[in-house]
Amino acid sequence: MPPKTRLHRAAFQGELGAFSHEAALRFLGRNCVVQPCQRFEEVFAALQDGKVDAAVIPIENTLHGSVHENYDHLLQFDHTIIAETNVRIVHNLIAPPGVGYKAIRRVFSHPVALNQCLRFLAENPAMERVPFYDTAGSVKMVMEQGLTDAAAIASAVSAGIYGARILRRSIEDDRQNFTRFFLLRRNNQRPLQLDETGKKGWKTSLVFTTRNQAGSLFKALSAFALRDLSLTKIESRPLRGKPWEYLFYVDLLGSVEEQRVQRALGHLQELADMLRVLGCYRV
Amino acid sequence: MPPKTRLHRAAFQGELGAFSHEAALRFLGRNCVVQPCQRFEEVFAALQDGKVDAAVIPIENTLHGSVHENYDHLLQFDHTIIAETNVRIVHNLIAPPGVGYKAIRRVFSHPVALNQCLRFLAENPAMERVPFYDTAGSVKMVMEQGLTDAAAIASAVSAGIYGARILRRSIEDDRQNFTRFFLLRRNNQRPLQLDETGKKGWKTSLVFTTRNQAGSLFKALSAFALRDLSLTKIESRPLRGKPWEYLFYVDLLGSVEEQRVQRALGHLQELADMLRVLGCYRV
Repeated sequence: MPPKTRLHRAAFQGELGAFSHEAALRFLGRNCVVQPCQRFEEVFAALQDGKVDAAVIPIENTLHGSVHENYDHLLQFDHTIIAETNVRIVHNLIAPPGVGYKAIRRVFSHPVALNQCLRFLAENPAMERVPFYDTAGSVKMVMEQGLTDAAAIASAVSAGIYGARILRRSIEDDRQNFTRFFLLRRNNQRPLQLDETGKKGWKTSLVFTTRNQAGSLFKALSAFALRDLSLTKIESRPLRGKPWEYLFYVDLLGSVEEQRVQRALGHLQELADMLRVLGCYRV
Repeated sequence: MPPKTRLHRAAFQGELGAFSHEAALRFLGRNCVVQPCQRFEEVFAALQDGKVDAAVIPIENTLHGSVHENYDHLLQFDHTIIAETNVRIVHNLIAPPGVGYKAIRRVFSHPVALNQCLRFLAENPAMERVPFYDTAGSVKMVMEQGLTDAAAIASAVSAGIYGARILRRSIEDDRQNFTRFFLLRRNNQRPLQLDETGKKGWKTSLVFTTRNQAGSLFKALSAFALRDLSLTKIESRPLRGKPWEYLFYVDLLGSVEEQRVQRALGHLQELADMLRVLGCYRV
């Protein structure tokens, strides 16, 4: 008999078969129970309300950039980032069984996915791109509606889930196409046992605002640079109610358990109007 | 007789009556000839191909953040930013004449505009939000189709252009809602005579990449901070082909004619793999 393990329930945005679904399985194992949500805000709210015990969100893509809305939600909700994973995004042209390549006149997918298959779409001018709310959801829809002139662009997994057929594999413009996902928990939840094989370092994510003065971002970054802490990402977002002022989201290599990180945070606290650690996790 | 003035032809994204249209009129005067385009890329291309002699693009909104796609196009095309202007975004509920407030079941607008009227939409749950490609375009569409259960969210100007009626004025959640627009010209075009009343300073926009080393962004920003140059904006975008590396777009207060700015650029050049000045303009 297999050992008794606790099943986790994780929310993500999109339909079954979405890349976020794949990320959830990677974080929590094949046996986790998933709860698809329509919007990112619902994913954060489901975790807050205790409907799930974890949430999976995309935070950035190497081609399209950051998922800015999720940066905003990270600030708005009081969750903690407990893990990250990078999923390679492979897009496929997927149609109902019996629908041939030449019959395709419309291609449904999330605007980001359509934007990542521009060469394929340019080579196939007969295929009109139709933005849809979700990649896997577009597979579900062309199947449910039994469309005979339409295809979807989505993951290979989603073709399997909905019983559709892959007409062309890997039609993305750029193979350097990865999405970084976060696994979130409520702040007061006890730690999760995660498979962290091969992970040797730590990353800490934080958000801060600086005073609106000359050189304030430079001074804020000095808290890290003077302690030889590497930043892997910086993202600015508008500060609500203060036009032309910004929040800065920073990822740094290091753990909040390390003294130099603690000192850097203490130093930044002196310079920042607001500072919050969003999470510390293995990389 | 009025003095003979040269008319300018400016491209912008959206339909007549879009906020970009308003920005174009502000930049170039009421007599400028406008060329609406469907996509931002077409706006940049129309300028490149000489179909217009100026282009107007939104670059950031104080609530929604940057228009990241346009940052990417600024790099991809060889245009120059020659002016900026901030337009206050006032959203209105607009319907065909004869359609009353209580009849409205669907509200069409650009996703950004819908997202900026969340309180109004929450107070009116009977109104389903329908994302559309453009604010003013949604007014045009509800008028052309003579919809009797639909309204659009758009500028007051667009109601006038399409003969529609404003049912509710200023329904945006936040009055601190401004969009910053750039006026672009080709690099080799001669200077334009612009109305720059009240503008006393200069701003310079640039883009650079740093070597992927600890502290490299900090060092890059030192080129400005050590010369007391204020940055008003920093934006990071993914660097294509190099996953998890970034381009940085920076706006600083100062002109490329000033010696300290020239020295800062020289210093940054030592540290940066790539550096390009995107424009220098009055503020």
